[in-house]
Amino acid sequence: MRILVLGGDGFCGWPSALHLSACGHHVTIVDNGVRRRIDEELGVRSLTPIRSLSERIEAWAEVTGRRIAMIDLDVARNYDELVELLAAERPDAIVHFAEQRAAPYSMKSPQHKRYTIDNNLTGTHNVLAAVVQVGVDTHLVHLGTMGVYGYESAPVDLPEGYLTVTYPDRDGNSHSREILYPTQPGSVYHLTKSLDQLLFQFYARNDGLRITDLHQGIVWGTQTEETALDVRLINRFDYDGDYGTVLNRFLAQSAIGYPLTVHGTGGQTRAFINIRDTVRCIRLAIESGSRVSGRVRVMNQITETHRISDLADLVSSITGASIERVANPRAEADKNLLSARNDHLLGLGLNPTRLETGLLEESVDIAQKYADRIDTGRVPCTSYWNETRRAAATRREEEPRPSPRSTK
Amino acid sequence: MRILVLGGDGFCGWPSALHLSACGHHVTIVDNGVRRRIDEELGVRSLTPIRSLSERIEAWAEVTGRRIAMIDLDVARNYDELVELLAAERPDAIVHFAEQRAAPYSMKSPQHKRYTIDNNLTGTHNVLAAVVQVGVDTHLVHLGTMGVYGYESAPVDLPEGYLTVTYPDRDGNSHSREILYPTQPGSVYHLTKSLDQLLFQFYARNDGLRITDLHQGIVWGTQTEETALDVRLINRFDYDGDYGTVLNRFLAQSAIGYPLTVHGTGGQTRAFINIRDTVRCIRLAIESGSRVSGRVRVMNQITETHRISDLADLVSSITGASIERVANPRAEADKNLLSARNDHLLGLGLNPTRLETGLLEESVDIAQKYADRIDTGRVPCTSYWNETRRAAATRREEEPRPSPRSTK
Repeated sequence: MRILVLGGDGFCGWPSALHLSACGHHVTIVDNGVRRRIDEELGVRSLTPIRSLSERIEAWAEVTGRRIAMIDLDVARNYDELVELLAAERPDAIVHFAEQRAAPYSMKSPQHKRYTIDNNLTGTHNVLAAVVQVGVDTHLVHLGTMGVYGYESAPVDLPEGYLTVTYPDRDGNSHSREILYPTQPGSVYHLTKSLDQLLFQFYARNDGLRITDLHQGIVWGTQTEETALDVRLINRFDYDGDYGTVLNRFLAQSAIGYPLTVHGTGGQTRAFINIRDTVRCIRLAIESGSRVSGRVRVMNQITETHRISDLADLVSSITGASIERVANPRAEADKNLLSARNDHLLGLGLNPTRLETGLLEESVDIAQKYADRIDTGRVPCTSYWNETRRAAATRREEEPRPSPRSTK
Repeated sequence: MRILVLGGDGFCGWPSALHLSACGHHVTIVDNGVRRRIDEELGVRSLTPIRSLSERIEAWAEVTGRRIAMIDLDVARNYDELVELLAAERPDAIVHFAEQRAAPYSMKSPQHKRYTIDNNLTGTHNVLAAVVQVGVDTHLVHLGTMGVYGYESAPVDLPEGYLTVTYPDRDGNSHSREILYPTQPGSVYHLTKSLDQLLFQFYARNDGLRITDLHQGIVWGTQTEETALDVRLINRFDYDGDYGTVLNRFLAQSAIGYPLTVHGTGGQTRAFINIRDTVRCIRLAIESGSRVSGRVRVMNQITETHRISDLADLVSSITGASIERVANPRAEADKNLLSARNDHLLGLGLNPTRLETGLLEESVDIAQKYADRIDTGRVPCTSYWNETRRAAATRREEEPRPSPRSTK
């Protein structure tokens, strides 16, 4: 199949592009390089030494003989070029990773909130409007987030997108209706994915577009089968307080003897997926795309759930790192229960990679190998959800805190 | 109270600003004049000869001795100026009319879809982010639409924003929860108001903002007590296929002997409100703002519901105009039932202006008075919701249709 991977230079986009290429698909990466510029803005860099996109693609061709095309294009800003691209390529599928994907970054300042709303909404809507304008029969696969469901304890195992509810009709009889699961986004980033859902619902209804929305859990791990083939293909590993996802952040912290910083009680339960499963899910979603109708298909792209404090304990038991509870910069419940369905992807053949000590140790190795690249000043999260959370953190900072050991 | 009226030069904004000023509030109109530029883009003009904003404001001062301030600012583009304005004015309330408000215009082309998404979402989010940034304790009153509920026959009288639903929990017991009424927006314009709801929900939860969302029905009528005081204060009257709301469009059509163009069967039921009640509702919403908590208050700003074909019959009976059924450019149900609650505004003291022959005749008079300003070529709606609707309309155009009589 001909596949466009929007945001194909990022943490999930790059290994997904490689996996799709390895499976024989014709892949074109569309990326404007903004994720690398955000690194510069934040004064941070990937723990792993990632190469330029052109060097990555050249290495992939050299190692595998497979060509990936590459187009420098901002889907939120270059609408006319996007239309030309769709008209020229007429892709069978479009994978849409081209959204700002860090919750703390989205809450960092008014400008960061505004950038996230603008980039994510305008970009996603441009893709939808362009598909309608060109009239191409393509399948749009979008990366959503489990965060659209909200992180309060739910009385049900979270369904995949839809919920059947009842309420009394005018005559007092029970009326039954399927609705999108009501969203409770916890950050501007999560909010954009909730907004995306409504865009998809409208364009599926009004124009019959084929759309799959993948509500992904928190991704951990670094390498996939394909990125491990050559050091020039290595995937991004973020450890900083904005882009570092919780488990990878713990691994990086332990590699440099920094305490594992748990936000609040650590009683938050979240859904997780390994990057190796992410790329498989993307492929499964695309290859089953002909079954998607005008109703948006929503799948939970997760394999397991864990409590944050349990993850900290696990990493601590492997690495000996200490654990430090810090004031939670996020406005969220101190603790919650979470369980969720993932029947769709299991049904398509996903064989989940569980969080096992072996795989975790691979990540520990990577973190330790590149530990000298870590800037400890960038480890804590300094993006506060609101003034109350900022004030709480400031009070905590006045108390003595353990100093990180120097790089081991 | 100190009140900012964003979009205060428009059809609802202008008479609302006057009414608030007449009631003793300190009003500042913020408007970038885009609605007048859209008239130029569409090659159309208000049926009534509206004056420039500065002339309007001068006339208001002359007639009443009351000053309204005026600021030329695009809330979607001039964020820094918006922040400065909020910091300087520290308004007690902000009324937000500054959104593109025509469903057909929002579906006219990819560019019009994109403009509507960008203007409405960016503008609304800018207002929210700016209020948080400045830290001003203000009450945001936003104009939503009844269209967020969707126009399929609902089994209930549409509630005001929220719906309590039940579903089985893990143990099979019934779980009850209040949710935002699930949206089914029927156009990109209506979609933006659905997206706005989620923005409001997030900012009310995360930052404790005080927000009232007014889901308004279709507005009809032209003049209010205040705009009728002087011809220079006259309100806008749109009759064109994009901005003309259905009843005003019928009145303009009948004034020039053009058949009343009913989309499809005319079996669509919609909610209505007279412009005189719009301005009263805005005032009631503002003056009750201190009661609004961090939970978004949603009120249905409507006074009655009617079937479109009944409205055509009513106008026809008064004016003798003929009725023509044309292919529906909109993707919507041929017919639907609709009833909705409006207890909130009734409880605040609204005394509804019903669609009575007397008031309708006032509008007929206005339409007839300015009938020589009508461009008949702009009367039909030529914005199609999708390719199916465009094709259906094109087939119909090949059939003979009644020719409009010349201006009477």
